[in-house]
Amino acid sequence: MEIRALKHGIHFHTDAIAAIPTMSIDLNNPGITSLSMAAHKIYGPKGAGVMFLRKDTPMISLMHGAQQEFNKRAGTENVAAIAATGLCIDILARKRRDEVLKIRRLRDLLLQGIQSNINKWVLNGPIIDRLPCNVNVSFINKAADTLLMQLDAMGICASSGSACSSGAIDDSHVLKAMGLPTCVINGAIRFSIGIYNEEEDVNVLIKALTELCE
Amino acid sequence: MEIRALKHGIHFHTDAIAAIPTMSIDLNNPGITSLSMAAHKIYGPKGAGVMFLRKDTPMISLMHGAQQEFNKRAGTENVAAIAATGLCIDILARKRRDEVLKIRRLRDLLLQGIQSNINKWVLNGPIIDRLPCNVNVSFINKAADTLLMQLDAMGICASSGSACSSGAIDDSHVLKAMGLPTCVINGAIRFSIGIYNEEEDVNVLIKALTELCE
Repeated sequence: MEIRALKHGIHFHTDAIAAIPTMSIDLNNPGITSLSMAAHKIYGPKGAGVMFLRKDTPMISLMHGAQQEFNKRAGTENVAAIAATGLCIDILARKRRDEVLKIRRLRDLLLQGIQSNINKWVLNGPIIDRLPCNVNVSFINKAADTLLMQLDAMGICASSGSACSSGAIDDSHVLKAMGLPTCVINGAIRFSIGIYNEEEDVNVLIKALTELCE
Repeated sequence: MEIRALKHGIHFHTDAIAAIPTMSIDLNNPGITSLSMAAHKIYGPKGAGVMFLRKDTPMISLMHGAQQEFNKRAGTENVAAIAATGLCIDILARKRRDEVLKIRRLRDLLLQGIQSNINKWVLNGPIIDRLPCNVNVSFINKAADTLLMQLDAMGICASSGSACSSGAIDDSHVLKAMGLPTCVINGAIRFSIGIYNEEEDVNVLIKALTELCE
């Protein structure tokens, strides 16, 4: 897609924040005009991130008033958070391969556990071409919001909707765009597995879901 | 001024960041439509601050995409920095009165020291109606940039230009707007006294300035 955009002279921005923790992205790909990511998704501080902008690409700044960051973002730089972001990227580059293996194994354990214990559910999105950390499932004829509150009371954090809109009561616009029926969208929950999760966490979650979906 | 703006239905925004560390601002003043400040000027974290917006005031958001902060600023909240900002304001409210007394005393010592030891200098701006932490002085026929580098080499941090533009080579637009001649603007340096400064720091600075302006 980004190469087609390039051929037509279209600026292709990729919001890579969900990809960076588990995927390698080749910035030599000329189709990527710009790319953004946030440090807090790779266990760094909130409030800092990285903006990649291909050389000589015009950009209109949102923040004006002073010359910081090559005139691209005015405001006193949060030096500590910027340095921490760089360190997190260093660590990620060294550890990501092993982290992905661990996360994918836990993801597969979770899917197997749901498969073995719960009757009416579907996986939203393909099993191939899926981020290894992401499990987006719908429990048919269940209300996701209710399930989330029940899980929360059991000490389990999950999310409905898209990452930016959790807490919003609207249905996920992404699942809608995927053409899923309302009874599926209403029961959709996103579980995200991180590097600090262990097999025990997955077992606790499977047990909880089994109880709640009985 | 803000009351005149109010009478004419004009939104009056006050960038209070230089005032907050040493001045009390009454938000019951209906002339203040909005007010902003940043935590790092009151010894808090960089990257967080406070935006006061009077009820029912229309505002166009710069950051779109999600519903955080009452739809006014999209993006994952930096909860730690926000909490720290609140704590810093609490501490400020308790300690500001004493801090101002200390800072003003150091400021007056600095001005007396310059007066006693240096021939050609002027204070930019009034001595009354001045922030107690601020000493903006011009050393006549000296280049501020050179002085700053010499001070830096002696371990003393100061600034030319306005706070947002230090490092820029243009003359201060504020001093220009005050109608000062070029020979004064060129030698203008801003010293800021903070709560961690002591009398010894002021003595070191006076000694350094005396040497450099001989």
